[in-house]
This record gives sequence, structure tokens and C-alpha cells, in this order.
Amino acid sequence: MPLITLTTDFGYQDNYVGAMKGVILSICPKATIIDIAHGIPPQNIVHGAFVITEASKYYPPKTIHVVVVDPGVGSKRLPICVTSHGQYFIGPDNGLFSLMIQDDPQWAAYQLENKKFFLETISTTLHGRDIFAPVAAHLANGVKINQFGKKLKKINTLNIAKVQTTKNKVLGEIIYFDHYGNAITNIHQKDVNKNVKININHKMMLDQLNTSYETGELGFPLALISSSGFLEIAIKQGNAAKQLALQIGDTISLEE
Amino acid sequence: MPLITLTTDFGYQDNYVGAMKGVILSICPKATIIDIAHGIPPQNIVHGAFVITEASKYYPPKTIHVVVVDPGVGSKRLPICVTSHGQYFIGPDNGLFSLMIQDDPQWAAYQLENKKFFLETISTTLHGRDIFAPVAAHLANGVKINQFGKKLKKINTLNIAKVQTTKNKVLGEIIYFDHYGNAITNIHQKDVNKNVKININHKMMLDQLNTSYETGELGFPLALISSSGFLEIAIKQGNAAKQLALQIGDTISLEE
Amino acid sequence: MPLITLTTDFGYQDNYVGAMKGVILSICPKATIIDIAHGIPPQNIVHGAFVITEASKYYPPKTIHVVVVDPGVGSKRLPICVTSHGQYFIGPDNGLFSLMIQDDPQWAAYQLENKKFFLETISTTLHGRDIFAPVAAHLANGVKINQFGKKLKKINTLNIAKVQTTKNKVLGEIIYFDHYGNAITNIHQKDVNKNVKININHKMMLDQLNTSYETGELGFPLALISSSGFLEIAIKQGNAAKQLALQIGDTISLEE
Repeated sequence: MPLITLTTDFGYQDNYVGAMKGVILSICPKATIIDIAHGIPPQNIVHGAFVITEASKYYPPKTIHVVVVDPGVGSKRLPICVTSHGQYFIGPDNGLFSLMIQDDPQWAAYQLENKKFFLETISTTLHGRDIFAPVAAHLANGVKINQFGKKLKKINTLNIAKVQTTKNKVLGEIIYFDHYGNAITNIHQKDVNKNVKININHKMMLDQLNTSYETGELGFPLALISSSGFLEIAIKQGNAAKQLALQIGDTISLEE
Repeated sequence: MPLITLTTDFGYQDNYVGAMKGVILSICPKATIIDIAHGIPPQNIVHGAFVITEASKYYPPKTIHVVVVDPGVGSKRLPICVTSHGQYFIGPDNGLFSLMIQDDPQWAAYQLENKKFFLETISTTLHGRDIFAPVAAHLANGVKINQFGKKLKKINTLNIAKVQTTKNKVLGEIIYFDHYGNAITNIHQKDVNKNVKININHKMMLDQLNTSYETGELGFPLALISSSGFLEIAIKQGNAAKQLALQIGDTISLEE
Repeated sequence: MPLITLTTDFGYQDNYVGAMKGVILSICPKATIIDIAHGIPPQNIVHGAFVITEASKYYPPKTIHVVVVDPGVGSKRLPICVTSHGQYFIGPDNGLFSLMIQDDPQWAAYQLENKKFFLETISTTLHGRDIFAPVAAHLANGVKINQFGKKLKKINTLNIAKVQTTKNKVLGEIIYFDHYGNAITNIHQKDVNKNVKININHKMMLDQLNTSYETGELGFPLALISSSGFLEIAIKQGNAAKQLALQIGDTISLEE
């Protein structure tokens, strides 16, 4: 049974997600539809890119992921299908799929242009329903990827700061807050020494890296390696984003 | 495999939705259950009616939709099953199903009264679990609709204002806010001229109709045709409901 | 087809739930995955225990429930699988499964210790993905429960106040708020007389027990028996938690 996942910023109070599911099941009744998340913060492409990159690592080959965080819907941004890590990723070409291909030299991308595989009427505001869902369902039905449109040489990337590493210092920033208010940075665990001090936005210094939330002090900030392998700032049983007034882009530096 | 969708105002933190799914799968293990939305604003029947009307357009024939926005649970309002557009709609008779039948002269409705198809114990507070879910599962198992109860001659309708159209003016109102804060009106695109000015609650005038969010100015209000075909007031990458302090019922008029 | 449900406090904006589903479907592709709720208030173990206890009553035998509200992840709290009421419950041993076994002398619990059934890399922050999801999938594939680890003699319980019953009075407290702001108490309907007065935190007295929301006055507080059989304080079409400023632990007493 083909597996189609959905990741959007459509939320949980409207007809948008339900319509996408109906479109898929009308075209491919045997598809299994899995909700990854529909609570991506509205129009936050970096957040969506992070979620699909981290979640898709755990899916079987040939899974079809539909990802819609699409502030440019109705503009000239292209609808695309990316193949990477043996899976399919369908959505707008706005950077959503640029994180996952960083470690995959085999990636490919195709423009979705064959209207035969779209709904008959295409709105200017909801391509999730009118283009991405039907393409996913046709792909699940066995349509070959090159039938949807031509191969692309490149796709758009995200404007995320690169970590700066010098002899005594690693300089990164907060790129993502999760549901608990944990702040996830762009600093990967390979760049983190055990005996490091963590400087949070020049406002607070943590003397050590913790190994779990549990080893922290209740209500106090701590730093640890997140489940996705990046440095994370948290408060044990609290909300670091709110309690420390953190923002996306705040600098985090590791010092000896 | 029979398809049962769920649309409720039960939210995402309680046992209510999970209990409904358990009831369905206990009676009809082969059913595929699809979540449309459980974040309908509490007790907002118009919102629920709009969501199921718009989402169900994209589902295959014979889909069974369970819809529970039910402030009158435990009162004498009837539990019903409506057939319309080749699909089934199960829930309370409080107007939830009155939008979708407007363009379907073939609709029919049945009272749910045969207790054989309910749970043994019926609470006064959760008919989604005790009546609507088991009826949906029995329907999915092949029980004929007239076995649930008698046919009804009419169902309750919603008290939604009608659009007033005069020679130079179309007068409507806001009936719905979506997850992004977009304000959807009761004015259908067939009543909207291209060269129209849009008066928002006598507080603001838009000089034109946009064709997509993307064609607006970042942070400024715009009007366009929504994905469901109604006039919509939005702010590009913003939240119109909050930023313009809009309310359900605010007047929107189109002027030449 | 094996049935696996998910109940977590992971929310709806991250990769955590999606990763769990991918892990399950990679190991047991034929599993049906059902979302019960992912909006359990963060780290609220009592809330999670209540939800899974009440929801699981409606599931068929052999259902596998994965429940993750896990503030102690990464500590020495044990990962366990409980069998009770003919179903399986997988999660941390922190009290989550102590309510459901109260009326089941046949319950048993097993420590999850056989790493063969975990993911290869175990994070210290997300055992839902790394331990509980893969164990559920292997259980669904037919692995016997005693292959996961040794049987335990006891599991941890919750620190919930017991109702105090005297000749003229029943003294309980609020243990749970639902999505509507209804306050659910620890007082079971068997302890509630029909002709009782309800004292809400010594601030308000209700003269009677209502039979449904509908029989209350719009906007006024009322008491009734909830769909799970416990005394509940509500406001008709309102939010009792907010409007009455109620808190978890507020005393509720029944007086003649």
C-alpha cells in the first residue's frame, strides 16, 4: 500500500487538510495517509524544512511526502517533486526541500507542469489541494516521475546562517523553537566539545553540556544535544523560548 | 474499504476523539478513519457547516462523514443522517448540514432512533462517541440507512445573512475566519466584478481585487477569491482578523 | 491488521510524532496508526493517564497504545509495557498507566530492556521515537511480550487525592480541564446523590445537579456527570476554567 504523508501550515480548524485527503483518496483509494504535522507556524519555510528533513529520515523507501508551507502560492514559484534518500517530496520550490538534499548527492528534482495530473480547476490560493495532493496520488498510482514535467538543474535554498568555527569558538544561532519552547540551533553535535561553555545571546552563560533534561535543575536553563543531533537550549519542565525571551536568530556561541 | 471522516470541535487534548475512533474500529475494523479537523471553534456551528461543506466536495461517493459541533447535546435536538451528493453525513440536526444541501435537490435525511445501533449506555454529553460513531460504523458495515430511523421532511437551517445585491452594490458579511486569520465572506465569486472597490466594515476601502496573496503588498490588506470561491479579506503574510480587528458579521460591500 | 494508537504531549508543529509513525511503518508496514491526542498539556502525566484510561475503554482487544508524556526521559525511569483489559500500553513508568489498572486485577507489566527491539541509536530526549514506537511495531509483528524484558512486580502510581466521604459530605477536587474548559473532578457518579448542593472551592454554591449542558442557563455555571462518569463543572456554551478562574486541585464538595 502506497504511503503518503502530509506536512503543512494549514492548521487544524479548516477544510484545507481534509480537502487534500479527499483528493488523494479519490484518485488513489488504496493510499495510506499519515499526518506528520499541520501546525507548522504559518509561512515559516525554515520550520517546515526542518520538520520534513528530520521526520522523513524514519520513513520507508518510496514514501511520498507532501509538504505545503507556501507563502508564494499563486506566484511564479514552481511546483516541484524532489527525489532524495529513496523517497519523494512534493511541494513548492521555496527552500522546503533544500535541507534534506545537503547530504544526498543523488537528489533530483522535477517541475510539476503536466496539468493532466492536477485538479481541473486550479485556485491561486490552495495548490496543496489542486496540484500537490493529486500529483502525490497519481505518483502513488504508479505514474513515472518524469511524466509530471521536466527535470530541474537546481532548486531554491534557504537563507540559513552557516556555523562559524574558529580555534576557540563555535558561533551559531537559534533556527527553530519546538512545541515545548526548546530552542534548537544550527550547531551540530560534531562541533560540540564535552567541556564547553555555552553563551546564550551574550546574556547568559551555561557552564556545561547536560546529557538529558532530567540532569538539569528544575526551572533552570540547560543545554543538551537534541533528538535531531543539534545543540538545544531548554528549561527543565519549562519553556525556554518564553522564559528566556529567545528569538529566532539569537546567537549561541560555544567557548572553551 | 469504507471511508469514515471525522470533523468536530473536540480539540486535540482529550479522550473524546480517540474514543470515537475506538468505537468505530470495534464495530467496523476495516474502516479507514480520516481526520478532517477537530479544531472547529467550540460550539461554532456555522464554522463546522462551512468546513464539512467545502471539504466533502473532494471525497469519493459513499464516504461517511461524522460531524459533531453539538452545543445542544442532551436536549431534544435530533441525531440525524443526511444523504447528499452521494455521501453520508451523520451528526446533530442543528444546521451543520444545511449548507451542503442548498445545491442538491436530491438530499434526504433520516432520524437516528434505533438504539440497536447506539452504544449500550448513552451519556447526555458525548453523542459523538455514543450515537454518531457507532451509527457511522454500522453504516460502513452495510446497514441500510432506513434501518436507523424514519425519513425526515426537513432539517434545521443556519441563520446566515443573505447577500443583498442592488444595481451598484453588493452587501455581504464576514462569516468565517480561517487558521491564518483570513476573513471569508458570504459573497460568492459570481457576484464579484473585476473592477470593484471593496469596503471593509465602513473603515477601509480596497481599490481592487487581487488575483493571489503574492500580488499584494507585504503587510497590507488585500481582497481575493478564496479557494472555496468566496470573497476573502487577507493580509499578505499577516493575520487579517487580528491586525484589522475584524469580527464575524462585519459588513463587506462591493461598490463600483 | 494490528492497531497502534498514539497519545503524546508532542504537539502538532514538530517532527516528533511524524518520526514515531515512520518508525512504526518501517518495522510493521501493515499497522493501522490512530492518533488519540498529541495535545496533552506538556509534562502533565495525570492528564495523559486520564486520557488513555478513558479512551482505551472503547478499543478492541489487542490494541497497542503508545503513550508518551515523559518529563523524565533520559533518567532512570523505566520504559515499560503494561497489559490490561486485554490491550497493551507502552510508555514510561511514571504513573501514566496506573489509573487504568485500578479496576483490573489481571494487569501485568514488563520492562523494555531488549535493545534488539529499539532503534540502533537511542537519544536521551526522545524515547517515543527510539524505544516506544519500535517496540510497539515489533509487538504488532507478533513478538511475544516477555521477549522485550522481565516482568515487573509493580509500577509507579500517581499522586492523586482520594475522595473523602463522610455522612453529610463528599470532598473531592478538580483533576483535569478539557478543551472546552470543563473541570472534571475525582468524584465518581456513584458518590453523587441527585439532591445535592455543589460547593466550588468555597467560592460558589450550585443548588442542583443538571442532567445536560442544555438544561443549564446560558453563561452560568452548572454541574453534571461527565461522559467519563465523573462530576464535572461547566458553563453552558462557555469556558468554566477561565471564567471561574478554576485551578487543578481546587476543592469541590457535595453537601446535603
